[in-house]
Amino acid sequence: MMTLTRRYRFSASHRLHSPALTDEQNRTVYGKCNNPYGHGHDYVLDVTVRGPLDPPTGRIVDLDTLDGIVKQQVLDRFDHRNLNAEIDSFAGVPPTTEVVAGEIARRLRSAWASRFGATCVELAKIRIWETPRNIFEVTL
Amino acid sequence: MMTLTRRYRFSASHRLHSPALTDEQNRTVYGKCNNPYGHGHDYVLDVTVRGPLDPPTGRIVDLDTLDGIVKQQVLDRFDHRNLNAEIDSFAGVPPTTEVVAGEIARRLRSAWASRFGATCVELAKIRIWETPRNIFEVTL
Amino acid sequence: MMTLTRRYRFSASHRLHSPALTDEQNRTVYGKCNNPYGHGHDYVLDVTVRGPLDPPTGRIVDLDTLDGIVKQQVLDRFDHRNLNAEIDSFAGVPPTTEVVAGEIARRLRSAWASRFGATCVELAKIRIWETPRNIFEVTL
Amino acid sequence: MMTLTRRYRFSASHRLHSPALTDEQNRTVYGKCNNPYGHGHDYVLDVTVRGPLDPPTGRIVDLDTLDGIVKQQVLDRFDHRNLNAEIDSFAGVPPTTEVVAGEIARRLRSAWASRFGATCVELAKIRIWETPRNIFEVTL
Amino acid sequence: MMTLTRRYRFSASHRLHSPALTDEQNRTVYGKCNNPYGHGHDYVLDVTVRGPLDPPTGRIVDLDTLDGIVKQQVLDRFDHRNLNAEIDSFAGVPPTTEVVAGEIARRLRSAWASRFGATCVELAKIRIWETPRNIFEVTL
Amino acid sequence: MMTLTRRYRFSASHRLHSPALTDEQNRTVYGKCNNPYGHGHDYVLDVTVRGPLDPPTGRIVDLDTLDGIVKQQVLDRFDHRNLNAEIDSFAGVPPTTEVVAGEIARRLRSAWASRFGATCVELAKIRIWETPRNIFEVTL
Repeated sequence: MMTLTRRYRFSASHRLHSPALTDEQNRTVYGKCNNPYGHGHDYVLDVTVRGPLDPPTGRIVDLDTLDGIVKQQVLDRFDHRNLNAEIDSFAGVPPTTEVVAGEIARRLRSAWASRFGATCVELAKIRIWETPRNIFEVTL
Repeated sequence: MMTLTRRYRFSASHRLHSPALTDEQNRTVYGKCNNPYGHGHDYVLDVTVRGPLDPPTGRIVDLDTLDGIVKQQVLDRFDHRNLNAEIDSFAGVPPTTEVVAGEIARRLRSAWASRFGATCVELAKIRIWETPRNIFEVTL
Repeated sequence: MMTLTRRYRFSASHRLHSPALTDEQNRTVYGKCNNPYGHGHDYVLDVTVRGPLDPPTGRIVDLDTLDGIVKQQVLDRFDHRNLNAEIDSFAGVPPTTEVVAGEIARRLRSAWASRFGATCVELAKIRIWETPRNIFEVTL
Repeated sequence: MMTLTRRYRFSASHRLHSPALTDEQNRTVYGKCNNPYGHGHDYVLDVTVRGPLDPPTGRIVDLDTLDGIVKQQVLDRFDHRNLNAEIDSFAGVPPTTEVVAGEIARRLRSAWASRFGATCVELAKIRIWETPRNIFEVTL
Repeated sequence: MMTLTRRYRFSASHRLHSPALTDEQNRTVYGKCNNPYGHGHDYVLDVTVRGPLDPPTGRIVDLDTLDGIVKQQVLDRFDHRNLNAEIDSFAGVPPTTEVVAGEIARRLRSAWASRFGATCVELAKIRIWETPRNIFEVTL
Repeated sequence: MMTLTRRYRFSASHRLHSPALTDEQNRTVYGKCNNPYGHGHDYVLDVTVRGPLDPPTGRIVDLDTLDGIVKQQVLDRFDHRNLNAEIDSFAGVPPTTEVVAGEIARRLRSAWASRFGATCVELAKIRIWETPRNIFEVTL
């Protein structure tokens, strides 16, 4: 068993604001990330899959298939988007990177199950770099 | 003579759209960067100064002074901001990184002249990394 | 459950010398790191916490609180210090990065327990980069 | 218990081609990596060992010993080599990075057992960066 | 006037061997890079252009046009290739990175002249990273 | 004409303190870098040479020769050293990175002249990264 981690990137804007908090609480909790006009990041997404070598090809997983899933589920939806205004599942939710990671995990897990459910190649984890200093990881 | 380059970072969102172009031209020229809701980047800003060593201190420039100028002129204005909506000088202008670099150059040059005009420490150049693949440089 | 890893930096000097070894053994074991006048590194410290999302804020942990703990326990004590001469717990001990990692783990674990002991946010691990080639990790 | 990860590099060339597949299948599966004349990469190898601190030295493992094993088992055999033509164990096998990782794991595990088998310092895992975007990991 | 530097990557294999030298001289000059079966690198190519801002678009150069030229002149020819066997202009020449840089400079200069010759956007320089430690630059 | 930049590293400790300043001025100018016990850095040194291609070898300069000069003039003297206590030329001088860069420039310029003075390969510049945020450059 071995893992392959493949790295992707997307740029998006967001504003951190929670309807469950007062305006003053929002400013305290999120600081300048609560600025009404939003700001943005260049997110790095690492997707890790785990499986045995397929002897004829010497590979764990076909990279074009993996890239296709990540493109369809993540990049086409999030890249060059405003996370608050354009992603339905973030309506009424502060799109922190924790929340974004949860959503990406859900999408990839579901797409993986339909495509690879019958095989022994598993989606192992995702990691998102919000900035080079803030890194989030979800084990799947 | 020697140069010192000091690195800063700021996150901002923007939308590339030029009022001098039709909607269709905007979509052609800027592609997904023309998305109406905007997107964002983590910009890296390198500021380079050039001067002789000051013998008693062994330094070209006092770092606190340099940091103070960059904070006041750039970081306090651009960090965690929407460049289209919150920066007056980008009204009616597409805030490409070229345009942002020009504006940062103007601000720093003017602040430098008031503070260091009478000395032989010059502001030599600025460099902005929009992403790790797109890097802009202005010689001052 | 999700993890957040946040990155910090500190610069320090040290000399590797163990009172349990003879001078010749010290030179053999530590090579040029045994040089009597010491040398230094720019250490990178990654602190990883694990927990569930807090629904109102969309966050695992408040970053200001985390930063405050790391500043008080690690950065204020180690940054711009000589590890042999200025850190009591390294008296009579060679301050290798393994030893430094153990001490940072102890300090953070204890401060975490007083502040977050009653919550389900755990301190998961620390990682120290002595140089880009030598990386130490302690699971907590 | 703590881990130390130490980073090494080697450059090699390879051609991905599997004798178990037809020429057309090879072109489909490997794309331009099937080019008959080969291409190359600068591989980064991270070797992780796990163990307790040795109190007199404050170290998990002697770095010269670790470096010697990696040099003899990996760098001397793979660095500046053509993986298809010069590494016997890749005869008739497509030298994908998964296959290379498996071979490096086997070599290091065996050399580790003869040298450190009687101690409590374990070889924990290896990680190979084929490129900054494709990263393979084997837990040992 | 401002510069834009855009970063590209390609992987290739090569063997350093000069027909103007004896076998022994080749081994002395190129060391393990003279290994008959070749080895490879992941080259990073930075292309720098210089020009004024185009006011309607806020850009120095159209990125799709730049990418198209680099793809046609460099990436399509060199990526996943054996530089000795597959690039005619390296017949009888040791394909050191200096030689590769010269060839890339020639190709880009000529393609630039046909496409941008009548404009004030200049090709300013190219930089090739053979490895993170060996970096070559040609001013154009 | 082309340049080659080659990257080296060394670790050293220092204390910033100028005998030309009072103790209070020293604390004001250097802040925590004035701490009496010193601290340290992992310096990165980039050495750039400029010259024409040597046609038989396809190289600007022999890398072993360049490495030998940098090792003898810089690494053997500065690596794993205390800059204040062990480098004569820093006696009575605050070993800021500006001062270190000046000293390295002097040493390399002089060694270069004796070895390459009669050739057309020039030492073009040096760059020192004190940290990833503070970068110093001297044109030679």
